[in-house]
Amino acid sequence: MFTPSGFKFAGVHCKIKRKRKDLGIIFSEVPCVAAGVFTTNVVKAAPVIYDMEILKKNSNGIRAVVVNSGVANACTGEQGMINARRMAEKTAEELGVPVESVLVSSTGVIGVQLPMDKVENGIEEAVKVLSNDPLPFAEAIMTTDTKVKMHSTKVTIDGKEITVLGIAKGSGMIHPNMATMLSFITTDAKISEEALKKLLKLSVDDSYNMIDVDGDTSTNDMVIVLANGLAGNTTIQPETDGFWKLYEAVHEVNQVLAEKIVEDGEGATKVIEAHVVNAPDMKSARLIARSIVSSNLVKTAVYGEDANWGRIIAAAGYSGAAFDPNKLDLFFESEAGRIKVAENGQGVPFDEEEAKKILSEKKIRIILDMKQGKEAAKAWGCDLTEKYVEINGRYRT
Amino acid sequence: MFTPSGFKFAGVHCKIKRKRKDLGIIFSEVPCVAAGVFTTNVVKAAPVIYDMEILKKNSNGIRAVVVNSGVANACTGEQGMINARRMAEKTAEELGVPVESVLVSSTGVIGVQLPMDKVENGIEEAVKVLSNDPLPFAEAIMTTDTKVKMHSTKVTIDGKEITVLGIAKGSGMIHPNMATMLSFITTDAKISEEALKKLLKLSVDDSYNMIDVDGDTSTNDMVIVLANGLAGNTTIQPETDGFWKLYEAVHEVNQVLAEKIVEDGEGATKVIEAHVVNAPDMKSARLIARSIVSSNLVKTAVYGEDANWGRIIAAAGYSGAAFDPNKLDLFFESEAGRIKVAENGQGVPFDEEEAKKILSEKKIRIILDMKQGKEAAKAWGCDLTEKYVEINGRYRT
Repeated sequence: MFTPSGFKFAGVHCKIKRKRKDLGIIFSEVPCVAAGVFTTNVVKAAPVIYDMEILKKNSNGIRAVVVNSGVANACTGEQGMINARRMAEKTAEELGVPVESVLVSSTGVIGVQLPMDKVENGIEEAVKVLSNDPLPFAEAIMTTDTKVKMHSTKVTIDGKEITVLGIAKGSGMIHPNMATMLSFITTDAKISEEALKKLLKLSVDDSYNMIDVDGDTSTNDMVIVLANGLAGNTTIQPETDGFWKLYEAVHEVNQVLAEKIVEDGEGATKVIEAHVVNAPDMKSARLIARSIVSSNLVKTAVYGEDANWGRIIAAAGYSGAAFDPNKLDLFFESEAGRIKVAENGQGVPFDEEEAKKILSEKKIRIILDMKQGKEAAKAWGCDLTEKYVEINGRYRT
Repeated sequence: MFTPSGFKFAGVHCKIKRKRKDLGIIFSEVPCVAAGVFTTNVVKAAPVIYDMEILKKNSNGIRAVVVNSGVANACTGEQGMINARRMAEKTAEELGVPVESVLVSSTGVIGVQLPMDKVENGIEEAVKVLSNDPLPFAEAIMTTDTKVKMHSTKVTIDGKEITVLGIAKGSGMIHPNMATMLSFITTDAKISEEALKKLLKLSVDDSYNMIDVDGDTSTNDMVIVLANGLAGNTTIQPETDGFWKLYEAVHEVNQVLAEKIVEDGEGATKVIEAHVVNAPDMKSARLIARSIVSSNLVKTAVYGEDANWGRIIAAAGYSGAAFDPNKLDLFFESEAGRIKVAENGQGVPFDEEEAKKILSEKKIRIILDMKQGKEAAKAWGCDLTEKYVEINGRYRT
C-alpha cells in the first residue's frame, strides 16, 4: 500500500466493541483541503451534521479525522451532537490542532449514545500510536466487514509523484442498526478547494453512488477526501490536465473500494456488474444500471446461477427511465465467456449449459445494449442469499 | 362469496401448465362500463398494451375478460401482440360478442410465446362451463400463489342491493419470470365511465399501490373493474353519495385482496403494516409508509422478531419525503399489545421481552407518528425470509 506524504494513521481498541479495534484517527502534518459527500438520508447521524458544518466553514484547514465503530451516534438528539463535537475537541487537544480542523465519523448501532469515557481514552491512545501504516485505521472502522478495504495508486503531475490512498468500510450490520458506507481518501496532491469538490462529486457519482447491497441508505454514509499538498505540484485547478490526471487516480481508488464493498456485502457470494451501453442519456443509463443491481429478483437469480433475463428487462422497465423496450439486446458475461440472451427486447435461443457455466463464476457482468443513444453507465451489486436473511434476521444480540 | 348479477365465470386446464388450471373467463350477460389500472413498467406485456387500447375505444361496452396463467406474453414482440388479439377474437367468437368487447390478461413466464392451440382449445372449453361460481376462475389465474384470493361485499344504493366481487392473484414466480399482480373486480352497480375511472384510481392508490413483496414491478400487472348495471340503481356520478358508498365497497374488496397478496408473498411468514400518521402531506405519508414496508432491512428484522427501530427511522429518512426527523414517535403493535420504541427521533427504553412478544404475532403494525401534520397513509408488506431466496434463487425448473 502506498501512503501519501505527511499522513499518519492509528487504530486502537477502546472497548466500544468487545474485542476488535473500534477507534481510528487519520492525521495530516499540515492543513488539508477537504471535500465530503454525505448521506442523502433525511435522518442524518450527529457526525454527518457536524462535518457538513465544519466543511462549510473550514474546508481548507482540515488536519484530522476521528472515527469510531460500534455505535453510529444516529437518532441520539442533542446529546449526540454534544458527543460528536466532544470527539473533535478531544482529538484536537491531543493533536494540538484547532477543533475546527477535525472531522468526525461513526458507524454502528443506531439510537445509542457514545460511551464518551471509552472514546476519549481511545483518542488519547490512538494519538500515541500514529504511524505510516494505514492498516490499524482500516481495521478500526470495520463493523461486520469480513475484509479490510484499502487501495492506493500513484500518478505523476507536473513531474511530481502524487499518491492517493483510500480506506473504506462497507455494508455490515450490528444489532440494532444498518449498513453504513464510509470512505476516507488521502492524497498529497496540491489542489484548490473548488477543484477537489468537483473531482470528488464526479467520482462518487460513478463509484459509491452506483453500488447496492440491499437498497437501504444509511444515516451515516460519508466519503471524505483530504489533500495536503505535500507532493509539491502546482495547485490543481478545475478541468485542467492535472485535474483529469488526479481524477483518474482518485476514481481508480473509489471504484476499487466500491467494488470491494459489494464483494463483501452481507451474505454475498457473487458480484454483479450491470453495464448499460448505448443509452439515450446518462441519467437513464445510471437509473437502469442501478435498478438492475438493486432488484431482489435479479440478485436471487444470479445467486441461483439462473439466466433469468426477463427479470433484468423488467428491472430496466421500472427504473424510472423512459426508453424503447423493443430495441434492447442483453448479454451475460464472465471469465467463462459471453452469451446473448435477448435481442430487440425478445428472448433468443441460447445454450442453457453455456449460460450456467458463465453464471457459475464469481463476477457476473450483465450487458444491456439499448441501441438508442451513446451514453453508458456501470453499477455494481451483489447477490441475495439465505445468508443475508440469516445475518439480518436470524442472528441477534 | 356473493356474486354480482349477470356475471359468469369459468376456469379450465388447457395444458399451458402441467397440472393446474391455467385459463379463465369472466363473462357479463350485458355490456359493462370498464376501467383499468396498468403496470407503470416501461416494458409492458402484450395483453397490457392490447387492453389499454381497447379501454380507450370501448370502455362502456366490455363483455368479457380472458386470462391465462403459465405464460406472461411479455417480451414477445409482434407475435405477442398477434396472440393477445387472437385470444380476444377467439373468446369473442365463442361468446358471440364483438372482439372489441373482450379484454385479455396473462401471467407467467416472460419471453415465451403463448401455445395458441392450447389457448384456443381452452377458450372453447371454458365458454362451455361458464357458471355463477367464481372459484374455478380464481384458481385458473394462480401461479405460485398458495391460496385462492377472493373477496365480496354488498352495499345498498338507491334502495338497490349492489354486489362487488374481486378476484386476484399475487406475487408468484415461475421460471424464468417475475411476480405479477392481477385483480378483477366485478359489480352489478350502474355507474358512469368517468365515475368508475375515478373510483378505481382512488382505491388503487390506497390498496394495490401500497403493497410491496419484493420491490419489483411486473410487466403484466393490471386491475380491471367491470360494472354491468344490472342492480338497477340510478347511474352513479362522480363524488355523489352513491359514489362514495360504492367506493367504500370496492375499496374494502381491494384492501382485503391487497392484504391477501402480501400475506401470500413468496416465503412470507408475517404481514407488516406501516401506518404513518400526522404527516405533513399525503404524498410524504405514502412515500414513507411504502419505504418502510419495502426495506429489506425492516423485512428481515420483522422476520427475526427484532424490535430494530433504527432501520424503520432510516427507511423513512431515505423515502424521498422531506420532514423533521426529531419529531418522530415510533410504535410496534400486534394482537399481543403495543410498545413505544422511539420518541422525538430518539430511542426510549422498552421491555425487550414485551417487544419480542408483540413481534411474535403474524401481523405486525408499525406506527410512525410524525407529529408534523394531519395526513396519514397505510402500506402493507411481508417479511423477507430464507424461503424467498430459496424460491427465487435455489429452485429452478
